[in-house]
Amino acid sequence: MCRWLAYTGEALQPSALVLDAQHSVVAMSLNSPLGAETVNGDGFGLGWYPADASSPAHPAVFRSIEPAWHDQNLREISEAVRSPLFFAHVRAAAGPPIQQTNCHPFRYDNWLFMHNGSIAQFGLIKRELVLAIDPSLYPLIKGTTDSEVLFHLALTYGLADDPIAAVGAAIRKVEEAGHAAGVQFPMQGTVAVADGATVWAFRYSSQGRSRTLFHSADVPTLRTMYPEAERLAAFGDHAQVVVSEPLNDLPGVFLEVPESTVAVLDPTGYRHEAFLPA
Amino acid sequence: MCRWLAYTGEALQPSALVLDAQHSVVAMSLNSPLGAETVNGDGFGLGWYPADASSPAHPAVFRSIEPAWHDQNLREISEAVRSPLFFAHVRAAAGPPIQQTNCHPFRYDNWLFMHNGSIAQFGLIKRELVLAIDPSLYPLIKGTTDSEVLFHLALTYGLADDPIAAVGAAIRKVEEAGHAAGVQFPMQGTVAVADGATVWAFRYSSQGRSRTLFHSADVPTLRTMYPEAERLAAFGDHAQVVVSEPLNDLPGVFLEVPESTVAVLDPTGYRHEAFLPA
Amino acid sequence: MCRWLAYTGEALQPSALVLDAQHSVVAMSLNSPLGAETVNGDGFGLGWYPADASSPAHPAVFRSIEPAWHDQNLREISEAVRSPLFFAHVRAAAGPPIQQTNCHPFRYDNWLFMHNGSIAQFGLIKRELVLAIDPSLYPLIKGTTDSEVLFHLALTYGLADDPIAAVGAAIRKVEEAGHAAGVQFPMQGTVAVADGATVWAFRYSSQGRSRTLFHSADVPTLRTMYPEAERLAAFGDHAQVVVSEPLNDLPGVFLEVPESTVAVLDPTGYRHEAFLPA
Amino acid sequence: MCRWLAYTGEALQPSALVLDAQHSVVAMSLNSPLGAETVNGDGFGLGWYPADASSPAHPAVFRSIEPAWHDQNLREISEAVRSPLFFAHVRAAAGPPIQQTNCHPFRYDNWLFMHNGSIAQFGLIKRELVLAIDPSLYPLIKGTTDSEVLFHLALTYGLADDPIAAVGAAIRKVEEAGHAAGVQFPMQGTVAVADGATVWAFRYSSQGRSRTLFHSADVPTLRTMYPEAERLAAFGDHAQVVVSEPLNDLPGVFLEVPESTVAVLDPTGYRHEAFLPA
Repeated sequence: MCRWLAYTGEALQPSALVLDAQHSVVAMSLNSPLGAETVNGDGFGLGWYPADASSPAHPAVFRSIEPAWHDQNLREISEAVRSPLFFAHVRAAAGPPIQQTNCHPFRYDNWLFMHNGSIAQFGLIKRELVLAIDPSLYPLIKGTTDSEVLFHLALTYGLADDPIAAVGAAIRKVEEAGHAAGVQFPMQGTVAVADGATVWAFRYSSQGRSRTLFHSADVPTLRTMYPEAERLAAFGDHAQVVVSEPLNDLPGVFLEVPESTVAVLDPTGYRHEAFLPA
Repeated sequence: MCRWLAYTGEALQPSALVLDAQHSVVAMSLNSPLGAETVNGDGFGLGWYPADASSPAHPAVFRSIEPAWHDQNLREISEAVRSPLFFAHVRAAAGPPIQQTNCHPFRYDNWLFMHNGSIAQFGLIKRELVLAIDPSLYPLIKGTTDSEVLFHLALTYGLADDPIAAVGAAIRKVEEAGHAAGVQFPMQGTVAVADGATVWAFRYSSQGRSRTLFHSADVPTLRTMYPEAERLAAFGDHAQVVVSEPLNDLPGVFLEVPESTVAVLDPTGYRHEAFLPA
Repeated sequence: MCRWLAYTGEALQPSALVLDAQHSVVAMSLNSPLGAETVNGDGFGLGWYPADASSPAHPAVFRSIEPAWHDQNLREISEAVRSPLFFAHVRAAAGPPIQQTNCHPFRYDNWLFMHNGSIAQFGLIKRELVLAIDPSLYPLIKGTTDSEVLFHLALTYGLADDPIAAVGAAIRKVEEAGHAAGVQFPMQGTVAVADGATVWAFRYSSQGRSRTLFHSADVPTLRTMYPEAERLAAFGDHAQVVVSEPLNDLPGVFLEVPESTVAVLDPTGYRHEAFLPA
Repeated sequence: MCRWLAYTGEALQPSALVLDAQHSVVAMSLNSPLGAETVNGDGFGLGWYPADASSPAHPAVFRSIEPAWHDQNLREISEAVRSPLFFAHVRAAAGPPIQQTNCHPFRYDNWLFMHNGSIAQFGLIKRELVLAIDPSLYPLIKGTTDSEVLFHLALTYGLADDPIAAVGAAIRKVEEAGHAAGVQFPMQGTVAVADGATVWAFRYSSQGRSRTLFHSADVPTLRTMYPEAERLAAFGDHAQVVVSEPLNDLPGVFLEVPESTVAVLDPTGYRHEAFLPA
């Protein structure tokens, strides 16, 4: 339903990936070759931890209901800031309302969250899911998306303490509620969360046929593979990306994240492990 | 927190009251002499039952997050349509989010609803109030305002069968929840609802110090009082308005609706009765 | 660069063609099979002569920078009004700015104007074209599009007196200026103008390879061709449409308007004649 | 018609002045005590030279048509960036259109420009002024304001070489054209321009009754005057501001810039000189 990208590594202008790549996030907003929808024009968001922020990091979020492809402010901001960890998201709404509070990423304290996919028949189980959210978190919900509810479930289940377990518990809650309501495959999608230092990227669906997700090969390897690629000079050795679909067509640059997997990107590099095997 | 107007009578271009009056709704958006806030610039809405609609009437709603005062589309639409019953509302938000789903009027089937005022410390009791809404209505809530919750409470308590009793029950629920949470004066405001034929306008606050509300004197009387007022020629004999504050400075044209009162405007004219006396 | 539709005939809700057709204008905004661009998501406009307007007719215009596909206000308004002559347009901008003043249709007095296509290398000749506009009309230009300049050239050259000659003169001016600046094929596109009673639709390009344009077969004939088509009951015998591409896939319902042609749609029906043959 | 602020000094989060001051720019958008209009709700803009930009500096611009007072993105961005020189502007439009291209500041290469005030009877002389703009600059005009035309006149007259002379020549051109058209007092306002290192702030009107303009006293002096003012700790010794009206009510903190004066703010401090004496 959407496309997203998460970057971590040396501080970088988001424009390098949001605007300047062959299949940049802005390009995907108008034409997404691997997306469930071709057009992701129902708003966008950029969340970033500023390069010179004092710790603990507090991310900034810029969200708009305009399509990303011609948005001038997105161009300005993604070129004017630098960040060691940022999220970008373009939305294809299942339906209205198109409003900033339905744009990703969502934020809580130092956490960012974004999602591509959907909770099947969300209207059927929304009330039950919302009731499961910690009452102290409930008033923080500002929009109407399934994604924002999923985020607040994960917060309820301890995202700050154990992100993998908390997202797992949130998805299990969605599946339980969905199955009880007769929904065969309640959960679909890819999810990214970050705390300012680490990105956790989940690929999971109840059916085992999840939205696509890719991560970049490590940059020193890419420099060896493509010694003449001038564009690589823009990136540091620790630059890494997890993204809904490859940012370019070069073989070997983007590798698929497997089904039912959580990928972890931090200063030590990329790794992944099984997530919620049936 | 807002200003609103409801009209019923001969089919009329809304622009006659929304744009062209001395203190029109659009003028109030920039400068409201009697408002709790001077500026009501956080979006607006126009709801109208089209003049040539087949019955049962289905109202149209045009809402925008732009300030009303320079909105070109509002000018166009309020001049291009004609309606025997319409609502206009300009919003002064207690806070973000500014989004169409937070603009009044709200609609359900053939019903329109709008509100000026607030539920005190809404965040404290929002969850309890939302839980009291009929689960079948719950997924229809699209925004984050106290007003939309109040509307869905009234729908839950039988708005379609007995509007006065249902709005009364909704307010009582707000007061019970508020008092239980230690809020002294939970409810404040004026509320209008309509079904396409009748307007019910409520003025009530827990403290007995409600937002202002006025209704127009009947037009034949006004023609006698002001025989040279050319502007009166624009209105039919059954034209009547209930509005947050007078649309002009002429003595006797606008009369205050008393505290703790519900006014009823229908083809037989204006009447009012006591509402929720302590 | 865009898609558009013009309707004339019995008063009709625009939603019948803007929302409800198989390939409605709203559907074309997200996916235009025959368009130069697949996505026409850079705003839209609806211009209509209200069904109950006193004469001379004054058209209303509703324009927005949101994509048409999820715009709630467009749904509301196109269902709530009725009109014997309306224009609908969805925009694919060659570039920013995306602003209401760049959305079609444009209006002057009782005239509406819209355009699909472009003036090649407009930046090169914009100043010369603007200088050719009547100085009394010059301050009325509010946006930055080539289309709005073309409209004001046509007004300068007598649109109100002889629409076909005036649009012809405007295009000739564009071609002269373009050729002088070394542009091989300065003009591209389809143009519609209306005065409230008649629609003139032009298909022309300097290269002789114009954007597509179609008109509907007459309704009595269609009733004979498709006696079981329930949808035809929604239309009167004088309903006719000219549109960038067919609104459905039924053979014989939409017929191509030839190259270098102006089509005229009025209460006597459809006719066309050669326009600006080389 | 507007309110603006320009800052230069140690790199600072714009939020310190845009959000956090007693009479911050955002506060002025809703309620400007000294403004020609109380409400400046017709959009806003933030222009800043990023703190870590390589030279020559290229400013970023974030503009929106929303009122500043509840805009979430403005809060986010003004807190997330740091800049040694930034402009902030809130607009009160003389009339529509409300569009991003009419929001200040305007930019050309490394230059920023903003304006409070107006060219009297602009419609009368707009065409003549636009014709005086260098044809190579003409296509860069994207909006409809007098301010943007004034900026492009100043660019035409050599802003990059001699800003004071160029702004003077632009204003003289406005006055000549206005007087020729029978306008008694063609120019009104305050103007700020910057090149990334220096701010030039002009206060001038043909009538000699210009909009208000103030500059801050130097910070070391303020520390002596107000030794217990904790807020001063947020500012470096070279922090200086020029602003439409004082940001707080403390005596001696903001000093008026005289009539017919240009103020120059650069790393050596504040100075001013006579500008266009009659």
